[in-house]
Parts: sequence; structure tokens; C-alpha cells
Amino acid sequence: MRMGVLGSGLAAQTISARLAELGYDVMIGTRDPEKLKGWQSSNQRVKIGSFAETAPHGEMVFNATNGAASLNALMMAGEANLNGKILVDVSNPLGFSNGFPPPLKVFGTDSLAEQIQRAFPFTKVVKTLNTVNARVMVYPQEVAEGDHHIFISADDPDAKAQVTELLRSFGWINIFDLGDLSTARGTEAYLLLWVRLYGAMNTSMINVKIMK
Amino acid sequence: MRMGVLGSGLAAQTISARLAELGYDVMIGTRDPEKLKGWQSSNQRVKIGSFAETAPHGEMVFNATNGAASLNALMMAGEANLNGKILVDVSNPLGFSNGFPPPLKVFGTDSLAEQIQRAFPFTKVVKTLNTVNARVMVYPQEVAEGDHHIFISADDPDAKAQVTELLRSFGWINIFDLGDLSTARGTEAYLLLWVRLYGAMNTSMINVKIMK
Repeated sequence: MRMGVLGSGLAAQTISARLAELGYDVMIGTRDPEKLKGWQSSNQRVKIGSFAETAPHGEMVFNATNGAASLNALMMAGEANLNGKILVDVSNPLGFSNGFPPPLKVFGTDSLAEQIQRAFPFTKVVKTLNTVNARVMVYPQEVAEGDHHIFISADDPDAKAQVTELLRSFGWINIFDLGDLSTARGTEAYLLLWVRLYGAMNTSMINVKIMK
Repeated sequence: MRMGVLGSGLAAQTISARLAELGYDVMIGTRDPEKLKGWQSSNQRVKIGSFAETAPHGEMVFNATNGAASLNALMMAGEANLNGKILVDVSNPLGFSNGFPPPLKVFGTDSLAEQIQRAFPFTKVVKTLNTVNARVMVYPQEVAEGDHHIFISADDPDAKAQVTELLRSFGWINIFDLGDLSTARGTEAYLLLWVRLYGAMNTSMINVKIMK
């Protein structure tokens, strides 16, 4: 299966490398291919392309761009190239202009995931992985031997099921189905707690386990 | 020790009853004492007063009012009656006017806890217990035998230490010191995830455990 990963930051790089390791045909999409040349030298199975090349390459596409720039990046990727496909949105609408910890640009009665869904109505947006750092996203067993939860939010049940299966292949054991895409408001808001946990614990190799 | 609990809702009632059970001299403060007459018949050790009577009664005071009305309620309690005291803020700035799940009225670059601290600069505001339901606040062992975390945020280290000790007497084993009062932005934002967890799990007897 062909995968497209939009973004050139740590999350995009880590997800791309992991997908290639799992045997997928991966293209990573960036505004500036030069930026990824060094990284590619140790990740030669991953192709590099523009946003507009990466979206058609992927039968499933990841949005791992900076959340504040995601809508613009997806526009460059092209609506026609995303129509009918699953878009796994792992981004958070954090605004870094005022230093750390960042506030959220979208909040409460809306979410970045829903904004993307409204802008790309024929794409199946699935929100997940945005509550953990890049390494934990794809190697969850490195935190507490996998004994913690990842959340998934989506309107399309088949898309949710396919992404759930992919999460299992990453190593996720506890996948928490939060409900429809509006529940991404909850996981995006959680980032404001996550940054404080990170600040207090001095490590980003952390997550939460839901207890009852 | 005398305790004042501001509020007449479930959180205020539950905290008041638990403090009385632990041997404290408790007054619960309400805008409308009539509302609590029925409840008091089975909680006779708890006195009922106005906000302005309850604040001076308490050597430590809880803000368990509706978050959207907290600043107003604390104004009625009286700044002079709160000066020099610890105010344990368990409220969340949820806005219920648009139905469930509610959005937050304060968010991101500020928190209700900080708004209260700014309005009452000589009071030691400690934010805690706002991430769980009323019953879990004071009987944490009823969820996963206490194997989960409560957060605490405060600027004053002595106040934080005193409230930590009180939390232990409620049964809290894992008390996570998030840092200064600005970290309440994280725990207040988390409510937006909590309401979704509640929605998905059909129970509010839940919490998170921090894993690393």
C-alpha cells in the first residue's frame, strides 16, 4: 500500500520511517525538499516529494504538518488528490509565536480536525496520535510497555477501523474510540495539559492511561 | 480546623460531607440556604451559611461554585474574608448555555484559577480536584483502587504542601505537582477531553494515570 506523509518535521519523519519499516511505499511531502536530503540519506526507502506529489502518491495520507499551517499545506496538496481518501490528522493547532508553553489557535467549540473536514468534505478525516510525541506515536511500547491509551476520533466508521488496524501494527494495544470527529476538540485541548506534564517530568516519553 | 466550602452543587455538597466525616468544622456557603435544607437533614454536622458567612468561618476555603459564576461568588464572599487564606479552587470555567458537551469560557493563555488569583492577590489559590467528578475528588479509591493521578497547581509552596496533605487524607496516593498556578491552564483544558471520555464510557467514575 502507498502512504503519503505531509510535513517535514519530527512527526512526519518519524511516521514516514516507521511506515517504511513496516513495508509501505512511503512518500514524505514537504514545501522544501532540500531540507530532507540529509534525513533521507539514512531513510532511503522513503521518497521525497512536494505536497502536490505526495497526496496522489498516498492511498492513505497523514497530515503531520505544523497545525497552524495545516489548512494551507492541505490546500497545496490539492483537494482532488485527497478526495475519497483517509487523512490521518496527527497535528495540533498550537501557536508558537508567544513562546513555550504554546496556546491553541482553535479551541473549545471547534477543532483543527473539524476545520480540515469542512474544507475537504470528500476526505475521511481521522484524528489520532496527536496526544503523544512522535516516537511514542509509532513505538508505543517504549512507554510503560504499551500500557497506556491512544484516542481515535472520526465520522466514518470504515476509516476509523482501517486506521485502528494501522495503529495496532505500530504496537498500540489500548485504542480508545472517543466517537465522532468533534471529539477531537477534547484531544486537541488535552495538549495544554500534555505540555505541562512534559514541563514537570522533563521527558516527552509519557502518556495517559484511562482508569475506571 | 474550620473549613468553608463555597457552592451548593454536587461538588460543594460532596466535599463538605467528606470534610465533616474527617472531623473538620465545616460551613457550606450558598446564595440560597433554602436549597440545602433537605441535604442538610442527612448532613447535620455541616453548617449552612451565606457566602459572606462561610468565608470567615473557614480557615481554609474551597471554591466549589459554578466556574462561570465563581468570581462573582468570591466577591460576595468578600476579599477581606479570604485574605491570607488558602483557597482550594476545584471549579472549571465551563459554559453550559450551549448544551453538552460544554465549551470553556476561559482558555489557553489564561485560566479561571489565575483570574481568581489576580482578583484576590492576598489569597493563596491552589488549583486541584477539578479533573475528576465530585465523588472521585474525595473517595479516589473508588476508581481503580486509587491507582490514578490528581494534579495540583499553586504559586505558594506552603499552601501547596498543606493541600497535598489534605488530599492524602481524602485517600489520594498519586498527587502530581504540575508547578505554578499557570499550569491550571492545562488541567482546566483537560476538561474538554474528560467530557468526551465521560460520553464514551457512560460513567464519570474515571480518571487518568500518568505513564512513562
